[in-house]
Amino acid sequence: MDNFTFCNPTQIEFGKEKEKEVGNHLHIIGAKKVLLTYGSERIKKDGLFDTVVKSLKEFDIAFIELGGIVSNPLLSKVYEGIEVAKANHVDAILSVGGGSVLDSSKAIAAGTLYAGDVWDFFLGKVAVERALPIFDIITLAATGSEMNCGGVVTNDTTKQKYAIQSPFLFPKVSIINPELQSSVSKDYLVYSASDIIAHCIEGYFTATVQPTLINKQIEAIITTVMETTEKLLSNPKDYDARAEFAWAATCALNGLTYVGTSGFGYPNHMIEHALSAICNVAHGAGLSVVMPAWMRWYKDKNEAQFARFAKTIFGLDDAKAGIDALEAWFTKIGTPTKLSHMNITKETLEAVIDNATENAVYFGMKDLYTKEAITKILTSAL
Amino acid sequence: MDNFTFCNPTQIEFGKEKEKEVGNHLHIIGAKKVLLTYGSERIKKDGLFDTVVKSLKEFDIAFIELGGIVSNPLLSKVYEGIEVAKANHVDAILSVGGGSVLDSSKAIAAGTLYAGDVWDFFLGKVAVERALPIFDIITLAATGSEMNCGGVVTNDTTKQKYAIQSPFLFPKVSIINPELQSSVSKDYLVYSASDIIAHCIEGYFTATVQPTLINKQIEAIITTVMETTEKLLSNPKDYDARAEFAWAATCALNGLTYVGTSGFGYPNHMIEHALSAICNVAHGAGLSVVMPAWMRWYKDKNEAQFARFAKTIFGLDDAKAGIDALEAWFTKIGTPTKLSHMNITKETLEAVIDNATENAVYFGMKDLYTKEAITKILTSAL
Repeated sequence: MDNFTFCNPTQIEFGKEKEKEVGNHLHIIGAKKVLLTYGSERIKKDGLFDTVVKSLKEFDIAFIELGGIVSNPLLSKVYEGIEVAKANHVDAILSVGGGSVLDSSKAIAAGTLYAGDVWDFFLGKVAVERALPIFDIITLAATGSEMNCGGVVTNDTTKQKYAIQSPFLFPKVSIINPELQSSVSKDYLVYSASDIIAHCIEGYFTATVQPTLINKQIEAIITTVMETTEKLLSNPKDYDARAEFAWAATCALNGLTYVGTSGFGYPNHMIEHALSAICNVAHGAGLSVVMPAWMRWYKDKNEAQFARFAKTIFGLDDAKAGIDALEAWFTKIGTPTKLSHMNITKETLEAVIDNATENAVYFGMKDLYTKEAITKILTSAL
Repeated sequence: MDNFTFCNPTQIEFGKEKEKEVGNHLHIIGAKKVLLTYGSERIKKDGLFDTVVKSLKEFDIAFIELGGIVSNPLLSKVYEGIEVAKANHVDAILSVGGGSVLDSSKAIAAGTLYAGDVWDFFLGKVAVERALPIFDIITLAATGSEMNCGGVVTNDTTKQKYAIQSPFLFPKVSIINPELQSSVSKDYLVYSASDIIAHCIEGYFTATVQPTLINKQIEAIITTVMETTEKLLSNPKDYDARAEFAWAATCALNGLTYVGTSGFGYPNHMIEHALSAICNVAHGAGLSVVMPAWMRWYKDKNEAQFARFAKTIFGLDDAKAGIDALEAWFTKIGTPTKLSHMNITKETLEAVIDNATENAVYFGMKDLYTKEAITKILTSAL
């Protein structure tokens, strides 16, 4: 077990009607004016926007809106948010939406208090030294951003899908009401399941030091996600399944599944970021295509762990069979497992491979993930 | 899944040599003079005291000693600590020892900034509204106090073993170096295993709402504790086993195994607190006696969960067999399973039963845990 430092100060407010208290949480830290970020206008139709505004008004908290944040969120929108936040002297960010809205909000929170270009943080040129306090109501269970200090944004110009990370970017309070997540489409439910599983397996398979307790905790999350996904496909209104799915998503990337581990990488994310940057596919959909292909390519490097995965997740005695079973499960729930399912052809793939090869440098994995290796993995997923 | 609020701000510094940085952690919050609490003089013989002092000196942090804190720590010592802390105007507490030292330190931290009697907090007369910042180097993996906001102290006069709890009592920084725990005696290792398992099963068996993910996370901890205990009995110098044992202890009571659950109680602790308050037995030893007796008494109230326990922990198909297997495992590792193993007779038991019956009121469980019920449980453990 490796040495580690762990500190996750985010306050989680989990459960029914928790969004009604959002004004109070902002009030506690003395916020007077917030930047209210969101994605589509749907939150104005389904009542969530009104609930939030009502709670803000109760505590005399003014707000400026920044709507229109898209999936695979864009740097241009982050720039816009920073301008709005600066011009209006907001003292906190309130993100109402999924991981894309929250990730953008984190970048805005850091960028607003920085004189230079916020992209500097993504490029690792400078470290975040302060940020506006971040609050969120998370309406999609997938990225885990609600309880971690990272965020991913795509630079529209360079097509780099890169990450910002800093202890200053932990949300102060994250509100997770599973009921608000029950209107998510079937497609986004299964993409989310894929994303959560990807967060679980990156370290699980690649870490050179991997404590048994961490293995078990990860397996607990994976099996919970699989069980609750199936329940939700049968009955989207199953509150307990929705709640466990949501909490599993949070647990999968709040740092606790990485303590004491070392040597791990994020190869599936590295490759998928290229897919979604170039082809704008849903992140989880891209991941369910990349994962089986990557697993087959990587299996021999950590055969014992793949055998463990096959046994504990699927009750199978063979490492390869575990990969097949995961792929079959992805197919069963309806998330793509081949590039062709997303209409990505061999021709399109060239730009993706180039982008992923650049990512390999950014992710610090260029020695293992050469252009040849990435080509092999992605070609096998055609 | 029930609504919940979760926030655990403790910074964990885990691993080899982490104690050497303790002065820096105190320096970061601006501490100039600390109350250095500890148990026996052993830390002066084994070098830990010198390491701590050296680190404090590096940052010009003065310290006042409060040694001699015993297992099943006493309120009289807490009073002494509060006097010393007040008289010397310390600005933080540094606990170097096991759970007893840390629990006492939490009470001192709260009591020093309170004009009244610190025991008021334990009786629930008033809530803790502020406390000195708490830092610790934890030398025994058992209580989980290093990552939670509670502490247990025995009132020497009334023989009440009661708890203090407040968000102000989360340690700021907890240092867990498994190497510092490798000199623990075989007895205290197995008592600790029992204590950790008790922390796991209280909610697991008694909660009326118990998410499946939480079940799995608890089972991951229990099986890890069992596997690593056996490894450590074979080889006390097995660092990885020691480290996983330590982290499992922390995970068992940092709040994450209780999120989304409801209706749970701490009946094994309620009964054991009477045992250790009256007979001064080691807490973990008391628990390994109480648990099998309580489980047999309680089994019919949650048969399905006992069946799940038998299956997932021991691979057995029968609820009762799971209890027998746990008891057999306790015997195998060498922690007592009967009161007679601790020389507690039927005669001594009367005072214990009276004390536990009082505890049932304090723990809010008097309806189920009548004097008759407690008598039945404890008598079955003779």
